[in-house]
Amino acid sequence: MILKEGKIVAGVSARHLHLAEMDLKALFGENTTLTPIKDLGQPGQYASEEKVKVIGPKGQFESVRVLGPVRKDTQVEVSLTDAFKLGVIPPVRDSGDIEGTPGVTLVGPAGEVNLNKGLILAKRHIHMTPEDAKRFDVKDKDIVSVLCDTQGRKTIFQDVLIRVSPKYALEFHVDTDEANASFLKTGDQIKIIKEL
Amino acid sequence: MILKEGKIVAGVSARHLHLAEMDLKALFGENTTLTPIKDLGQPGQYASEEKVKVIGPKGQFESVRVLGPVRKDTQVEVSLTDAFKLGVIPPVRDSGDIEGTPGVTLVGPAGEVNLNKGLILAKRHIHMTPEDAKRFDVKDKDIVSVLCDTQGRKTIFQDVLIRVSPKYALEFHVDTDEANASFLKTGDQIKIIKEL
Repeated sequence: MILKEGKIVAGVSARHLHLAEMDLKALFGENTTLTPIKDLGQPGQYASEEKVKVIGPKGQFESVRVLGPVRKDTQVEVSLTDAFKLGVIPPVRDSGDIEGTPGVTLVGPAGEVNLNKGLILAKRHIHMTPEDAKRFDVKDKDIVSVLCDTQGRKTIFQDVLIRVSPKYALEFHVDTDEANASFLKTGDQIKIIKEL
Repeated sequence: MILKEGKIVAGVSARHLHLAEMDLKALFGENTTLTPIKDLGQPGQYASEEKVKVIGPKGQFESVRVLGPVRKDTQVEVSLTDAFKLGVIPPVRDSGDIEGTPGVTLVGPAGEVNLNKGLILAKRHIHMTPEDAKRFDVKDKDIVSVLCDTQGRKTIFQDVLIRVSPKYALEFHVDTDEANASFLKTGDQIKIIKEL
């Protein structure tokens, strides 16, 4: 195994959703725009003040954070632990790849949206710029392994997707199951491992 | 890395507890004995019919399974996800090693017990017999790595404790966070990896 040079910061994603313009209006009212309250690690992305109820066949979450800005398609990202509670098990997908995924029901102050797709478990991934990619000797869509050198629950995550864009900032994203299994916290540093 | 010969079956532990005789009586009544309903992977261990409410400073679980037989000390094993819900974060410990761990409140049909210790995150571990240990070239208390060759969330768990006793059956134990993070299910096969 080769340890690629340079550390990468981790970001842990709790359950959240992205909304299409149409669904934002249906849930929050015709003239609503998202209200940013906190910048996220990726440039231009933010946590908004807005929250919705997410309802599955077996359970629900009262208050799930909407991330902005609006997107082409509504997408709900949960952990597998969350999915068991909702009662619907989505596949692991890259962000944006929602064809054939299950739907859930969203409820906001102005109305309800019955999604026929959009629920995913997010695939572990690393955002980086083309300059980062050159430095780490990887390219967009590569699959790498990541070492989390934590105390007591040291873990190597394989199946980690590399995502390269000039719009990205260098950051490793996992969900709460992955973070809790490995004691990884937002701000911790990880390393890329490339298997020989 | 050396892949040791032989596959090992995984067992996923949901939140559960073991009760000391005294606490069993306090929770379920003076003449109660545990009622086995399902054998577990380890010889002599069983899931009992009995369940208790587990209450932490921030949240609670209504109905947590008691595993039998009774033990010297009461011990409550949760995932880190569960711990966040309870509002108290225990350390990672080997089973039985509960000195200095936080307590929780247990409520049963006959009464309540306020534990002053006993809440743990279980350390990932592999139960095996001395014969297994010889075959895998490991010994009691060794720390090894485990490869979970699952589809889409392939993971190597490090910090895995080897536990050797003639009373054990060969089995790799993780909690639900670790299982959900790696897509590992009870009955799946894993491999020991020993780092050079």
